[in-house]
Amino acid sequence: MHLREVADLVAGRLEHADPEMRITGVHTLGSAQPDQASFLANMRYKGLFEASRAGVIIITEKAFPENTRPVIRVKDPYLAFSLLQRHFHPQPRADGIRHPSAVIHDTAHLAEDVDIGPLAVIGRHVHIGAGSRIAAACVIEDDVQIGASCTLHSHAVVGTSCVLGNKVIVQAGTIIGCDGFGYAWTGQEHLKIPQTGRVVLEDGVEIGANTCIDRGVIGDTLIETGTKLDNLIHIGHNVRIGAYSIMASQVGISGSAEIGKGCQLGGQVGIAGHLHIGDGCRVAAKSGVPGDLEAGGTYAGIPAMPHRLWLRVSALMTRLPDIWKTLGKRARS
Amino acid sequence: MHLREVADLVAGRLEHADPEMRITGVHTLGSAQPDQASFLANMRYKGLFEASRAGVIIITEKAFPENTRPVIRVKDPYLAFSLLQRHFHPQPRADGIRHPSAVIHDTAHLAEDVDIGPLAVIGRHVHIGAGSRIAAACVIEDDVQIGASCTLHSHAVVGTSCVLGNKVIVQAGTIIGCDGFGYAWTGQEHLKIPQTGRVVLEDGVEIGANTCIDRGVIGDTLIETGTKLDNLIHIGHNVRIGAYSIMASQVGISGSAEIGKGCQLGGQVGIAGHLHIGDGCRVAAKSGVPGDLEAGGTYAGIPAMPHRLWLRVSALMTRLPDIWKTLGKRARS
Amino acid sequence: MHLREVADLVAGRLEHADPEMRITGVHTLGSAQPDQASFLANMRYKGLFEASRAGVIIITEKAFPENTRPVIRVKDPYLAFSLLQRHFHPQPRADGIRHPSAVIHDTAHLAEDVDIGPLAVIGRHVHIGAGSRIAAACVIEDDVQIGASCTLHSHAVVGTSCVLGNKVIVQAGTIIGCDGFGYAWTGQEHLKIPQTGRVVLEDGVEIGANTCIDRGVIGDTLIETGTKLDNLIHIGHNVRIGAYSIMASQVGISGSAEIGKGCQLGGQVGIAGHLHIGDGCRVAAKSGVPGDLEAGGTYAGIPAMPHRLWLRVSALMTRLPDIWKTLGKRARS
Repeated sequence: MHLREVADLVAGRLEHADPEMRITGVHTLGSAQPDQASFLANMRYKGLFEASRAGVIIITEKAFPENTRPVIRVKDPYLAFSLLQRHFHPQPRADGIRHPSAVIHDTAHLAEDVDIGPLAVIGRHVHIGAGSRIAAACVIEDDVQIGASCTLHSHAVVGTSCVLGNKVIVQAGTIIGCDGFGYAWTGQEHLKIPQTGRVVLEDGVEIGANTCIDRGVIGDTLIETGTKLDNLIHIGHNVRIGAYSIMASQVGISGSAEIGKGCQLGGQVGIAGHLHIGDGCRVAAKSGVPGDLEAGGTYAGIPAMPHRLWLRVSALMTRLPDIWKTLGKRARS
Repeated sequence: MHLREVADLVAGRLEHADPEMRITGVHTLGSAQPDQASFLANMRYKGLFEASRAGVIIITEKAFPENTRPVIRVKDPYLAFSLLQRHFHPQPRADGIRHPSAVIHDTAHLAEDVDIGPLAVIGRHVHIGAGSRIAAACVIEDDVQIGASCTLHSHAVVGTSCVLGNKVIVQAGTIIGCDGFGYAWTGQEHLKIPQTGRVVLEDGVEIGANTCIDRGVIGDTLIETGTKLDNLIHIGHNVRIGAYSIMASQVGISGSAEIGKGCQLGGQVGIAGHLHIGDGCRVAAKSGVPGDLEAGGTYAGIPAMPHRLWLRVSALMTRLPDIWKTLGKRARS
Repeated sequence: MHLREVADLVAGRLEHADPEMRITGVHTLGSAQPDQASFLANMRYKGLFEASRAGVIIITEKAFPENTRPVIRVKDPYLAFSLLQRHFHPQPRADGIRHPSAVIHDTAHLAEDVDIGPLAVIGRHVHIGAGSRIAAACVIEDDVQIGASCTLHSHAVVGTSCVLGNKVIVQAGTIIGCDGFGYAWTGQEHLKIPQTGRVVLEDGVEIGANTCIDRGVIGDTLIETGTKLDNLIHIGHNVRIGAYSIMASQVGISGSAEIGKGCQLGGQVGIAGHLHIGDGCRVAAKSGVPGDLEAGGTYAGIPAMPHRLWLRVSALMTRLPDIWKTLGKRARS
């Protein structure tokens, strides 16, 4: 790829760089070779800029105004890196390869080019759309619908009747459509409530590894278009998550909570059941949310409070010994 | 199902309702059709009562004293819903179907009507009791004993020598009997201690998806009758959990802790090792428990404290800026 | 095993014990029989010493100075127990048994004595070294390298191109080499960044059950020699963990964090991305670490602070009602 092509792809401007120079890939500042591009998206790593052996480095418009080495200036170096990485590593195509060891039910309906890996199980009346790839040892239970261009990694499980849109990615070991945690106390025992709803994942949703998404009790658990979930997340029954939201690993969302569009939840956040989290909320890692959150806010803490307040509170927590001492002195005075 | 039959099943009283009217199922207030029942268990949703199209709604004795629409009054609408949902969705029966792709060891002893799904593995000397169903791609390792009427969902693993009672349910991807986290430091390395105990799950236990239950180092990890665990929970080696306890998702119980009977742990709670949690304790979501808890108490916070105290403490945490300011002023005065 | 042999193995000193007496195993103080050894490593259980039926008990040099029963005195009873437990339960040997149901690609290169369990999948160009055992239903994807004497338990997944050294143990259901959580926001959607690096686990690493280790975006996620991870842990892309560190269950490490050598992280700890945790740090369970930590320190809390300070702070948190009251009185005065 010539640098002029790179600049075109990332909508960038070459500086001190030969447009005809060729690069063969992209790597980190510390590891990139002279035939590779690199990028500086997090200024925490700016110290690596000078010493990097990269053939060209993608930086922001304003970084290093005195720069004399070959760079490409863009608005968002991280996005530019992403575009380059996607160029050099395009998604594998489905080829219609069905491993003979896979167990595919006669009534399953698979588009011609769908790949099915070794020892995968495809149940009754399953539909899988064009270009989807089902990796080794996945279990797709009866009556599941999977759209086009989906990728299910090894050991993913999609439970009975669940629905995946197009371009959905499910990482390894993840369970879509396990039973929710629903019991009624009879006075003697916890009586299991049959969980008869579905999980619906809309187009472009990605779910990380070993995550669990409970099916609805009745009605559906719904994750809207383009939302991305990380590893080891728990999504309770009948939760609804709006489009283009992001959740880091180990988040737990209790049953019937509604998360808005464009929300960002940090790692290990917990959300209580039956809440409403407004659109565009950001919740810092490790927070515990016991009540509704207003749209557009940034929150942190256990219990969650506005992030600015949390910054003050958490700083003052470390001053509690001082507070106690001052108060003690004054009490004695 | 006629409404008079519904009323019988849930021990309820018809009000403004035709005993001969028939319903075909149960759904939420917002989605139920005129031929379906619904229920109002959480007063958070009482605003949906009027507009619901449900043919009949199950409510408490005291709700809506002026009500004029068809309802069934019961003591516990959630329990009534559960009974109805179980009526309309009875547990599937085992039929003795062994998928030909399953790998069943010659020495395994399976009751006649046990179902074994595609690509399941049943090891040496495994015993499985009448009416149990083992779903696709489960691995039941050597010498495991599984009682009657159990359900193991896709990709469940039961490790060597573990024991499941009757009516045990294991959700997908869950590991019963992984090695506990036991090492001794030699001065040079962490020396692995062979984990040679078992996991014993008594009758009626249910374990959620992608949960991990460590086998005992020596001796057993034990979960008593009727206890229910949610998804992504960690149970360390030699933990003992009393009967009819409930743990929400992502709870972590460190090794050798003893949890009493009838306890309720909220999501993401952590319990340190070698502790004793008394019978009937309730611990709020996200709490961290570093010491023993007395029976019957309700606790919250990190570190866990009585819940009433935590309510005061967590409210006052948000007043720390005020405390600091007042103190500052007084200090200056 | 004669007691004189036991004493030799654990470098201990017999006291009131017959060197020719034989024991057949080791068990807890409460359960050991007269033909078994036991040990007292945690003084919390010292009340069980007298009543124990064990034939011999391993204790510290200083415990029970007035002791009159058969004991073996050692420096570290827990280490001594470990050595005995390893003696009586040696690791199973690989025998070169390949279950006929396993799907092993023609181009895979397996040492002669490697065991492959039922329904395991071994991909293209996989290398597996001498004495390694791959249990039922594992998926080893293309181009993976696994060293000698490794043990992969049922349902473990090792993703494309990942590398395991020698004597690595992976517990059931664990995913090595899932995609990291990397997206760039385009203004319209979260654009997935192809995750093209590897996971490298050095010699002697052990990973617990249902844990997830993300592959690097570019470059590797690295876990150095002898480090042990518990169940349900999340390791983000490009994380580096130094040798002989220990992490308890449900820890989450965000992308590009660097954890030093010999660190100890308690359960449910969360570490933010791009941090540096110095060698030998200890972080208490449930802590949240938002910034770098200096080598050798002990930390606790959300946000993490020096452990001593946290002890004061957490104690004073419970005094907030008193602080508020005193302050109120003084304000009124």
